[in-house]
Amino acid sequence: MTKTKVLTGITTTGTPHLGNYVGAIRPAIEESRDENIQSYLFLADYHALIKGRDPKRIHQSGLEIAATWLALGLDTDRVTFYRQSDIPEIMELNWIVGCMTAKGLMNRAHAYKASTQANQEAGESDLDKGILMGLFNYPILMAADILMFNANRVPVGRDQVQHLEMARDIAGRMNHHYKTRFVMPEAVVGENTAVLNGLDGRKMSKSYDNTIPLFVPEKKLLKLIRKIKTNSLEPGEPKDPATCTLFQIFSAFATEAEIAEKRKQYEAGAGWGDLKNELFEYINTVLTEPRERYNALMADPAFIEAELKKGAEKARAEAAPFLQDIRKKVGISPFA
Amino acid sequence: MTKTKVLTGITTTGTPHLGNYVGAIRPAIEESRDENIQSYLFLADYHALIKGRDPKRIHQSGLEIAATWLALGLDTDRVTFYRQSDIPEIMELNWIVGCMTAKGLMNRAHAYKASTQANQEAGESDLDKGILMGLFNYPILMAADILMFNANRVPVGRDQVQHLEMARDIAGRMNHHYKTRFVMPEAVVGENTAVLNGLDGRKMSKSYDNTIPLFVPEKKLLKLIRKIKTNSLEPGEPKDPATCTLFQIFSAFATEAEIAEKRKQYEAGAGWGDLKNELFEYINTVLTEPRERYNALMADPAFIEAELKKGAEKARAEAAPFLQDIRKKVGISPFA
Repeated sequence: MTKTKVLTGITTTGTPHLGNYVGAIRPAIEESRDENIQSYLFLADYHALIKGRDPKRIHQSGLEIAATWLALGLDTDRVTFYRQSDIPEIMELNWIVGCMTAKGLMNRAHAYKASTQANQEAGESDLDKGILMGLFNYPILMAADILMFNANRVPVGRDQVQHLEMARDIAGRMNHHYKTRFVMPEAVVGENTAVLNGLDGRKMSKSYDNTIPLFVPEKKLLKLIRKIKTNSLEPGEPKDPATCTLFQIFSAFATEAEIAEKRKQYEAGAGWGDLKNELFEYINTVLTEPRERYNALMADPAFIEAELKKGAEKARAEAAPFLQDIRKKVGISPFA
Repeated sequence: MTKTKVLTGITTTGTPHLGNYVGAIRPAIEESRDENIQSYLFLADYHALIKGRDPKRIHQSGLEIAATWLALGLDTDRVTFYRQSDIPEIMELNWIVGCMTAKGLMNRAHAYKASTQANQEAGESDLDKGILMGLFNYPILMAADILMFNANRVPVGRDQVQHLEMARDIAGRMNHHYKTRFVMPEAVVGENTAVLNGLDGRKMSKSYDNTIPLFVPEKKLLKLIRKIKTNSLEPGEPKDPATCTLFQIFSAFATEAEIAEKRKQYEAGAGWGDLKNELFEYINTVLTEPRERYNALMADPAFIEAELKKGAEKARAEAAPFLQDIRKKVGISPFA
């Protein structure tokens, strides 16, 4: 039976936080254990250049993200775990499919439009001011990432659904014109995967600087959890779990029974200080072991590098012959 | 002493014609023999995908162009003669420099603007109708081609001068932000290299379908030369060489003395039929030997392939370590 190919990339611009873990990493690792699924998990370091202008940060982020996947028990023999920049075939495919991508399609991309809108709101006469071609070409590279391995499914947030439609559009044009056989990828928007809120109550995101990094040291974790914004209700006053970031984070880790129990505490008027301490205890218990593994991995970059090299070999064993076929179909092949 | 690096690429969309020979190939080969110059000559097959939608044509064109360079005596031990698609480093650099390229810069590219203008003139409301991202990204790939080898000089037609300015702009941004040391390339617009006219008196160009292929069989060459548009002046009437395509083509091959002699013939009222026959005789004599070599080469694609593979090794020996350095500077490098 053919396995369903599921592809997930993480852009190497930040330090993995609880939101990444709950929303992307944990479900991807769980899915990777499904015997009907072949998982492709990669460090999207060439995507990082779109926004990232700090080379040290990009490099460090890649290391942290790789260590995170491994610390959380990713079975690299089972999945294909690689660094985008180790697969030059992706960059070639990026150019090839770009030659079949309508400019009009890119004009409509959300990320690009958000940037022109920001210029407009700032009263700029040149709506493209400060916009770089990496951003404009972003959906093409994402299509290449996906089409390179003929991924069937790509778990994404709602904001990325459009990119999957674009990847399908591009694949369709290629298949139509060149008789390639790219698989049509489908976006999978996780209904159950919680989007966690951050310290300030907005969505946890590097761009808001409100994250709780997944593997911060214990003391720092406690400090951050204590910083989570709550309301001014006193101990003894009943509290609404539905609007509480603490409760939301707890729920992302706890069992149904534990969640029900916690809900009662809220209704009974537990104090914020206690609730924060209990959240810390709970999460810290869950994270202690993987955090130790993470720290050990971060101290052994050679091991991480070896894992990625192994993954790159595996990925290229698939990408290289496939690209040869695509190249041939567009007219680029050896003369003899 | 450091040699001056001169880079020339030919897009693999057509069959080399007399205009290509006189305007680009012949001067490049002559220059490649200069001991102060290191020539980089390549088949721009990934550029071909921008316009070319016919895989067989692109493939065949690459073979024909390679055979042409070799038939004309290119010394591949002396120059770096390669196929763009054999150098994956160029595609990676293409992405990296694209992330530093302003979209506004691309908006102003002549080739793109010509396409939007054509849409405007056709009354299209969507000025980007039918425009693909290959065209829009064309100047970025050209910059990558040039910057990959730190070319000092790039011989171009006037229409390409803007692309060299763009390559300089991109190189400047990279050098400024990432402390890379890309050489600033200079456009060299040949003042002496004639732009030949074609059969219909317009510039000889594949797009006008008015070319005389360089290595057509003798009979076909005669037939095409006879088709060159002249005016209706009778034998005996003096003719103006300055406005005559026949004279222009002749001048591109003949010596000063021969040109002066031919001018007298025009003034003395030579007939078009004779002038055409003489042009054929002259050019045919020049082309007979290289045409034989060309035909032999076309019959031996394995030899051409081997030459290109040799060239790719040479090019990559330079491109690979250079790219590693660039990658490192932008934050993409091994973890150990």
